[in-house]
Amino acid sequence: MTGPTPATATGLLAEIDTVGRYPTRSGYRRHVFDRAELELREWFVAAAEHRDLAVRCDRNGNLWAWWGEPGPDAIVTGSHLDSVPGGGAFDGPLGVVSALAAVDSLRASGFTPAKPLAIVVFAEEEGGRFGVPCLGSRLLSGAIDPDAARRLHDPEGVTFAEAAVEAGLDPARIGRDDEALAAIGTFVELHVEQGKGLIDLGTPVGVASSILAHGRWRFSFAGEGNHAGATLLGDRRDPMVPAAEMVLATRIAAAEAPDARATVGRLVPNPGGTNVIASTVDVWLDARAGDDATTRQVIERIRDMATEAADREDCTLTVTEESYGDTVHFDATLRDQVAAALGGVPALPTGAGHDAGILAAHVPTAMVFVRNPTGISHAPEEYAEPADCEAGVAALATVLGKLAG
Amino acid sequence: MTGPTPATATGLLAEIDTVGRYPTRSGYRRHVFDRAELELREWFVAAAEHRDLAVRCDRNGNLWAWWGEPGPDAIVTGSHLDSVPGGGAFDGPLGVVSALAAVDSLRASGFTPAKPLAIVVFAEEEGGRFGVPCLGSRLLSGAIDPDAARRLHDPEGVTFAEAAVEAGLDPARIGRDDEALAAIGTFVELHVEQGKGLIDLGTPVGVASSILAHGRWRFSFAGEGNHAGATLLGDRRDPMVPAAEMVLATRIAAAEAPDARATVGRLVPNPGGTNVIASTVDVWLDARAGDDATTRQVIERIRDMATEAADREDCTLTVTEESYGDTVHFDATLRDQVAAALGGVPALPTGAGHDAGILAAHVPTAMVFVRNPTGISHAPEEYAEPADCEAGVAALATVLGKLAG
Repeated sequence: MTGPTPATATGLLAEIDTVGRYPTRSGYRRHVFDRAELELREWFVAAAEHRDLAVRCDRNGNLWAWWGEPGPDAIVTGSHLDSVPGGGAFDGPLGVVSALAAVDSLRASGFTPAKPLAIVVFAEEEGGRFGVPCLGSRLLSGAIDPDAARRLHDPEGVTFAEAAVEAGLDPARIGRDDEALAAIGTFVELHVEQGKGLIDLGTPVGVASSILAHGRWRFSFAGEGNHAGATLLGDRRDPMVPAAEMVLATRIAAAEAPDARATVGRLVPNPGGTNVIASTVDVWLDARAGDDATTRQVIERIRDMATEAADREDCTLTVTEESYGDTVHFDATLRDQVAAALGGVPALPTGAGHDAGILAAHVPTAMVFVRNPTGISHAPEEYAEPADCEAGVAALATVLGKLAG
Repeated sequence: MTGPTPATATGLLAEIDTVGRYPTRSGYRRHVFDRAELELREWFVAAAEHRDLAVRCDRNGNLWAWWGEPGPDAIVTGSHLDSVPGGGAFDGPLGVVSALAAVDSLRASGFTPAKPLAIVVFAEEEGGRFGVPCLGSRLLSGAIDPDAARRLHDPEGVTFAEAAVEAGLDPARIGRDDEALAAIGTFVELHVEQGKGLIDLGTPVGVASSILAHGRWRFSFAGEGNHAGATLLGDRRDPMVPAAEMVLATRIAAAEAPDARATVGRLVPNPGGTNVIASTVDVWLDARAGDDATTRQVIERIRDMATEAADREDCTLTVTEESYGDTVHFDATLRDQVAAALGGVPALPTGAGHDAGILAAHVPTAMVFVRNPTGISHAPEEYAEPADCEAGVAALATVLGKLAG
């Protein structure tokens, strides 16, 4: 038995091309449970049901589309549909559309899975709205306290609990989902590469070896709001000054540690008026390194320099850890099995976080990367050539066929 | 003939106490033509009409309440009702309510003006919405090109022309208003002091001698948006780094020049995601000094340091002057006349800009300051004791009586 002509990844991406365009630069804004992301969810449900996959939404807002009876020991693939603000078209959606296309391809080839197979769409992978990345997979696997998750809020002050109600969930029921977790025998996530590894290796597809340790910290500097023209320099307690010093400290500390990255991409002065010395400035720090100790060392170095800068301006500093995840080394046996099934493609590390990294603590997990010719991600320039996208679909179909056959 | 019991400044301020509270710190958000500012305008119209003053809105959105037939050679007083984001209760409104209370007081004393007398409420004094301070008085006096004003836009992209239509104005008719200008014989603005001058002098009321030269510049740094975890430090073109260096350069340059102040209170990374290296960062610089040459020197010094910082990060920098006004020395004859009428109160300079500073280029203009016991302004801590407010009303009534009698 063979199915109809399989969809292509690029054809499916074209279907959602106009959803959630970003207003102030090109790219997308698709934040969990906003209008664009809800539209993408509806699109996914329709695409899955069109393929006779049985769709359900778990209690943490993750969508599941089942080929065969749900678990246990299912082969699960998928990714996410949300984006960073101003993000590209591939980060997340490529893994979802490739999963749909791979199912088409397997069916067209007459394949019948011996194990149940599912496509999952995780909620809030980027943390673009509520600040904690991989929130859907963290909740499902118990990596975040549900009370803490309910209290998370977006920049407009809407809590995750409130947004969940709006999206039709019961926030009282979020949290570790042993049934969903037990159903996953193996998880394979396909993702556009977010660096230049596959460009340098000259190959369209590779597998992941590891993910850097990664956390987010909020540095809140508090001083004294005042008039920008009438306040003498010596009378100022301007939190923007130590905030700027902290930005520079971030670069210094990252450069001192091996293979570390530290970034300030979000900085919010309050109230943010041109002729107003700010009362407070919040600075979000994203820091990553090869192991926990190095990451902690980078953070401590930045915190020390920021504290000294705050003291010099008679400001206070409060540092809050908003999320943290240790280094992930993907299951070596599965990694080698996947690489071999794909003809011996290379394994490479990544600095980017993924739901696969969260699930790796619980089940054998692998990732397939698709080459990104710009090497740029989290920006509109993120890209994958159509031929490479279809190479990714073929690779994912091969891997799923092998694992579920 | 005497009127009813005169209103007090604090009583009138209490009437608008709840209008336009700021959401993320205490204080107010009252931006031109937003809901709160429109509500304050309605309140002012009702308060003026209640006093049988004839109210009209000029073509630039400034409100006029006339005691007697409009101009020429009128004695005009007033201030503004808009605030900076998170501003205090007194900056602007104190001058408006004191004008209303002074009219009450003059009437209660049986005074009949020999010259027409008007209370004016200027639009967008703070530049909190469209970026250019004293926009209403600049338009009226021809200090800004109406085409440039129509194109100004708020952070949501709404142009001043669009907002003006919403507020019932015809944007085609904004610009220099010779009739309104000719009506003003003398302008006297009462304002809460925005520094510590009157605290140190130990007196509740003073007059203004001068205003610092003052401008606003937008520094736009452009780099390359990318992934915060996957992008090696050496591959980054992160505009947040030179933006932070520019903030520190601002303090250095201001400290080098005599009596200069330079401030960054507004800084916006685009797209502003925690795990996203920004594509661009816009930084607004507020700079002031005692004369034009010193102010320009401060700006050039900051621009040089910012350009070097941008070059080091392989970013570009574009600097745009959004507004500028040279030093204002208030009319010495009028200043001495006002000070003498008030029993010889002191004259003091200010670093804060005012509509009075714009009008001073066209008509004899004076300012009356009321003591601020915190010395803080553009922040919720801005204050004036009730007794000092009423001393201000009494002073303004004395001055208006003298000038219009």
